[in-house]
Amino acid sequence: VAHESLAAAVLAGDTRAAARACRVVDEAWPGHAELLAQLYSAARSAWLIGVTGSPGVGKSTLTSRLVEAMRNDGQRVGVVAVDPSSPFSGGALLGDRIRMQAHWADAEVFIRSVATRGAMGGLSRTTADVARVLGAWGASVVLIETVGVGQDELDVMRVAHGTLVVQAPGAGDDVQAAKAGLMECADVFAVNKADLPGAEALAQQLRAMLVLGHVTAGVARHGSSHAHGVQLLRASEADSGNPEWEVSVLSCVAARGEGINELLSELRRHYAWLTGTERGRARWGQRLREELVQRLYAGLSSALFERHAPEIERAAEEVANGAVDPYTASAALIERWT
Amino acid sequence: VAHESLAAAVLAGDTRAAARACRVVDEAWPGHAELLAQLYSAARSAWLIGVTGSPGVGKSTLTSRLVEAMRNDGQRVGVVAVDPSSPFSGGALLGDRIRMQAHWADAEVFIRSVATRGAMGGLSRTTADVARVLGAWGASVVLIETVGVGQDELDVMRVAHGTLVVQAPGAGDDVQAAKAGLMECADVFAVNKADLPGAEALAQQLRAMLVLGHVTAGVARHGSSHAHGVQLLRASEADSGNPEWEVSVLSCVAARGEGINELLSELRRHYAWLTGTERGRARWGQRLREELVQRLYAGLSSALFERHAPEIERAAEEVANGAVDPYTASAALIERWT
Repeated sequence: VAHESLAAAVLAGDTRAAARACRVVDEAWPGHAELLAQLYSAARSAWLIGVTGSPGVGKSTLTSRLVEAMRNDGQRVGVVAVDPSSPFSGGALLGDRIRMQAHWADAEVFIRSVATRGAMGGLSRTTADVARVLGAWGASVVLIETVGVGQDELDVMRVAHGTLVVQAPGAGDDVQAAKAGLMECADVFAVNKADLPGAEALAQQLRAMLVLGHVTAGVARHGSSHAHGVQLLRASEADSGNPEWEVSVLSCVAARGEGINELLSELRRHYAWLTGTERGRARWGQRLREELVQRLYAGLSSALFERHAPEIERAAEEVANGAVDPYTASAALIERWT
Repeated sequence: VAHESLAAAVLAGDTRAAARACRVVDEAWPGHAELLAQLYSAARSAWLIGVTGSPGVGKSTLTSRLVEAMRNDGQRVGVVAVDPSSPFSGGALLGDRIRMQAHWADAEVFIRSVATRGAMGGLSRTTADVARVLGAWGASVVLIETVGVGQDELDVMRVAHGTLVVQAPGAGDDVQAAKAGLMECADVFAVNKADLPGAEALAQQLRAMLVLGHVTAGVARHGSSHAHGVQLLRASEADSGNPEWEVSVLSCVAARGEGINELLSELRRHYAWLTGTERGRARWGQRLREELVQRLYAGLSSALFERHAPEIERAAEEVANGAVDPYTASAALIERWT
């Protein structure tokens, strides 16, 4: 299935075509990879900003304010809302959607939600694909909003050029874990609801954690190679001619629109670093490499599974009835196929 | 590397050997698959119970009570605590560990935490592996406790025979999404803190969602094949000679130990269904099949990536400098390799 005319219409800025392209991509219809290949170079110039944080910190309000600020600059804006809920719920972002309704009426703002996919990094792939459709449609900025809990959700942030992690005072003990998980994907921290008690203490605490992060990075034992890459980069930031990015902590009151421009300009400074310094470009190159590897994983697996379906069924049967353990069964098949 | 003597020591119930085996497995040392193959048949008889729910609902307290109840029955118990935090934090379960300290002193209780892995279902695989080590060590029950947010964390629950989803009154609007995600993995619901206002309303709401789930299951559009499998099974529950499992909602006050025995006996009833009915066995067979598929995915990908590393590096370079898009690059490599 070819989608040349669809690609042309998206590139011409047609909104209905973009909506259709999102669907083609989101549901992985035949020809979706070719469509994305055609949109890719136009989409490369879009600036992708991740916005994440625990439930209740005011992410959606802040996202909405960022959209507003960029619309005031006359830019076309895309929003990809990553929905952590299951098919069972039929989507749980209704509340957020209502909060964003001012933007739904704006023809220059394109909002699309993406549902959680089965497995295998599917969520990040789909998010990257949809963000590219919006970029090709003409969005100069695409905001990617996601709940900041869970590995999949953290991985989604790697799709963005820069990630804004939103925190707020008054969140309980139990979100400390989530905060820790968010530390490594933050390029800028926003302490929202800065008019509430505890906001300054939270900002201090985040700054302390950032300092601690520098110190302990070298001894972290567990984790993905992604995390280690970041840590190694951080460890070598002494080189001032080619600076490492310094994560900062800014305060804002999204509900009143306070501190939004400052956040935006810090995010712009990050983008300039990412695209304009050797270290920044190396970091981004690493992200693109990871994306390629993810696509290879997924594509390879489906190709091989399609070809060997009967063998897999037979082995699954044997595991289910206890004739063989899953370790021995999978090792035997991999041995035979490679 | 062979681990025969280690396997023998674990099977003899040696605790230090089990700790070492957990490490071999958790860090995927050479020979870990062979070790697991040796432990597998002994581990098959362990009953794996998942305990999940949003932060703050009292999961750890409830898990601790379940351990207590099973210890009173004289059973060896394993606990696998799935830690959602990143390497950056060095683990965030300290609070939970403190709450569980009574059990740490008990030689018949083995507690092991598992950190979030890079990607590709690594978390569920490691959890399954560690749970099997504990089963082979002699735990007749292994409790798997995880935060109920994020796809990875939901997938972990598929490792267990039965999953207890813990809810509590007073959690805000923002956890509705998490609740929705949890609906499809629940075998039993526990409304904890049942002495607080709103507990009865929450139980009612959960029961209503369960009824709604039956009705809407057929029209769910998005989602993994896993979810669809469950839904199809649910749709055919009219057959009373071979009953489908009916999810129930029970109340408890874990902090005071109230309602724990009732929960445990409902979980036992579920295990009897899973292992003793045709439908239950089909469901479990499907889970084992999914596990095999996951192991194949992971194993195949590493085998192929090892072999084709230089080609992948070259393609990654081209994607990073914009010479090719990731869609075309990955399609070309997959075409060449399969």
